[in-house]
Amino acid sequence: MIKPSLIEILHGGQANVTPVWLMRQAGRYLPEYRKIRERAGTFLDLVYNPDLAAEVTLQPLKRFPLSAAILFSDILVVPDALGQQVGFQAGEGPVLEPIRTVDGLKKLSRARVEDVLNPVYETVRRVRAALPDGKALIGFAGAPWTVATYMVEGRGSKDQGEAKKWAYADPDGFSALIDLLVETTADYLNKQAAAGADVLQIFDSWAGSLPENEFSKWSIRPTAEIVRRVRDKNPHIPIIGFPRGAGPLYADYARETSVDALSLDTALPQSWAAQHLQDHWILQGNLDPKFIVAGGKRMLEEAGRILKAFSGGPHIFNTGHGLTPETPPDHVAELIDFVVEWKHENTS
Amino acid sequence: MIKPSLIEILHGGQANVTPVWLMRQAGRYLPEYRKIRERAGTFLDLVYNPDLAAEVTLQPLKRFPLSAAILFSDILVVPDALGQQVGFQAGEGPVLEPIRTVDGLKKLSRARVEDVLNPVYETVRRVRAALPDGKALIGFAGAPWTVATYMVEGRGSKDQGEAKKWAYADPDGFSALIDLLVETTADYLNKQAAAGADVLQIFDSWAGSLPENEFSKWSIRPTAEIVRRVRDKNPHIPIIGFPRGAGPLYADYARETSVDALSLDTALPQSWAAQHLQDHWILQGNLDPKFIVAGGKRMLEEAGRILKAFSGGPHIFNTGHGLTPETPPDHVAELIDFVVEWKHENTS
Repeated sequence: MIKPSLIEILHGGQANVTPVWLMRQAGRYLPEYRKIRERAGTFLDLVYNPDLAAEVTLQPLKRFPLSAAILFSDILVVPDALGQQVGFQAGEGPVLEPIRTVDGLKKLSRARVEDVLNPVYETVRRVRAALPDGKALIGFAGAPWTVATYMVEGRGSKDQGEAKKWAYADPDGFSALIDLLVETTADYLNKQAAAGADVLQIFDSWAGSLPENEFSKWSIRPTAEIVRRVRDKNPHIPIIGFPRGAGPLYADYARETSVDALSLDTALPQSWAAQHLQDHWILQGNLDPKFIVAGGKRMLEEAGRILKAFSGGPHIFNTGHGLTPETPPDHVAELIDFVVEWKHENTS
Repeated sequence: MIKPSLIEILHGGQANVTPVWLMRQAGRYLPEYRKIRERAGTFLDLVYNPDLAAEVTLQPLKRFPLSAAILFSDILVVPDALGQQVGFQAGEGPVLEPIRTVDGLKKLSRARVEDVLNPVYETVRRVRAALPDGKALIGFAGAPWTVATYMVEGRGSKDQGEAKKWAYADPDGFSALIDLLVETTADYLNKQAAAGADVLQIFDSWAGSLPENEFSKWSIRPTAEIVRRVRDKNPHIPIIGFPRGAGPLYADYARETSVDALSLDTALPQSWAAQHLQDHWILQGNLDPKFIVAGGKRMLEEAGRILKAFSGGPHIFNTGHGLTPETPPDHVAELIDFVVEWKHENTS
């Protein structure tokens, strides 16, 4: 069996080609996804259907020479499993029954978590079994702060204002929610690893809205605890952290959580990251997905610039944010070919 | 006449107290603002009414011992003056007739700019005349990139996707829009200075969505050109730049635009900014306004932490983002008193 290049690099080895995958590589921009989505009922019905979720996970690998599949799921399966009402409305994003006080936490329970999430582990097993040699499978979860923002707001929000108000005014109460998420999320990631995930990524999409001290409290500390719990049971699985928008705090995050790799958002300058982070951590990223919507020469120039900026150390090519539905699949094909080709050119 | 502490510090002098003002210090959280707002017709009617706009600008200074007034206006007066339809819908934010191609630029013209913006200069004159000794008046404009995102999207957006698509796919065409904004904005700021503004701030609220190279093209370069044009006519007026979300690129922005001071967003770590920026630039910021919503001990602790972090160099206390309508005015009063008091304590 060929060891996947993504895994090699995450274990400190060298890869002949730059490993590449894209956030939201499975999803609405693919016509074959939209076909399955129509058949599946609600969005969560699709996530909890191992047959269909496995198929959707594998779809982009049938089209493009990607290095890895990422489990098709959503960060909000955790609150759903804890008993909070979670719905997805077409074009509207998630809607949850908001929880804004310690009292509201009483509605949550770990009793049904295992039952609700079992189909996700089954998806992981099926994808693992179906994946061709040399391809890695990435499992993932949301970081507690980001998941909490949705649980408290009841939806995506511009400024995470409700979650911040709770966290700032009543840090002890808010900690109770974060602690519950740390426990549940660590367990969820460990079970994805047990089911066959090769790599785990922790998405902290709203990390960038927190001031320095609060970032330390609500993003770094809970993530560090999850990493510790995962390493206890799965000492060798590589963990990628994604504290989106953390800016200069990427360095503190990496040091204090002890993740193996950092997924960089679109705004983090490559020059800064190469200089300050790449000596110690594997870097993943960070093409702006809007370049893939634009396509053509400008997309390839920007991809080339990123490949070059990170050529001095370990690098996994990726976007800095998820692909959007309007992305033409042909542009994705051209990009992935370019990334694979680029490495060949520069090592020959 | 007492020289305003804000001006002293911006001209490289020492101030006895830390100057303080807050973004959106005039606005919906104040009952006296809401009363005027009801009388004024549309939001732009208020902005273009020198009587009422001057009154609203001065309102927070009647309540709190702030160091400065900031002109009550909006960054979208520039597209409005250029002839693009701009409306403000209650609770919805701005709505514009989007312009997404070079052809669409033909709808814009500089012919009426002067007429449309004259009432704003009149507001500046009235506020200047009414301001007590020792208080500065801050004029402002949006940076071309940020104003362009609204002009292209037609509204506020989560990811500035339409503006990026245009900028990435057709940089020459998009440059035509940016160049027009550079010219109009530089002129607008020069006329605010001529009317009596003591300081100018350039708001680039969506700077943080741009990757490194595009940030240089669409945020730094146009801003540098505006600064150059303002300095040509008003060589001594201090200019504060606010590239919100720029992270480590705050340093490049400051160096290359040659602004005098940097307004820091809530996420920029104080430790990093003090170490990497404060030797060369005056720093303004950066309390998360959600702390003022929360209020109490936690708000004062966080304000104290910021004052301490920046005590080694020139610092203007401010929020890192605008106040929101739910902010209790009593919390603002407590905060401002604390900031003024803090400095006294630490210099005695």
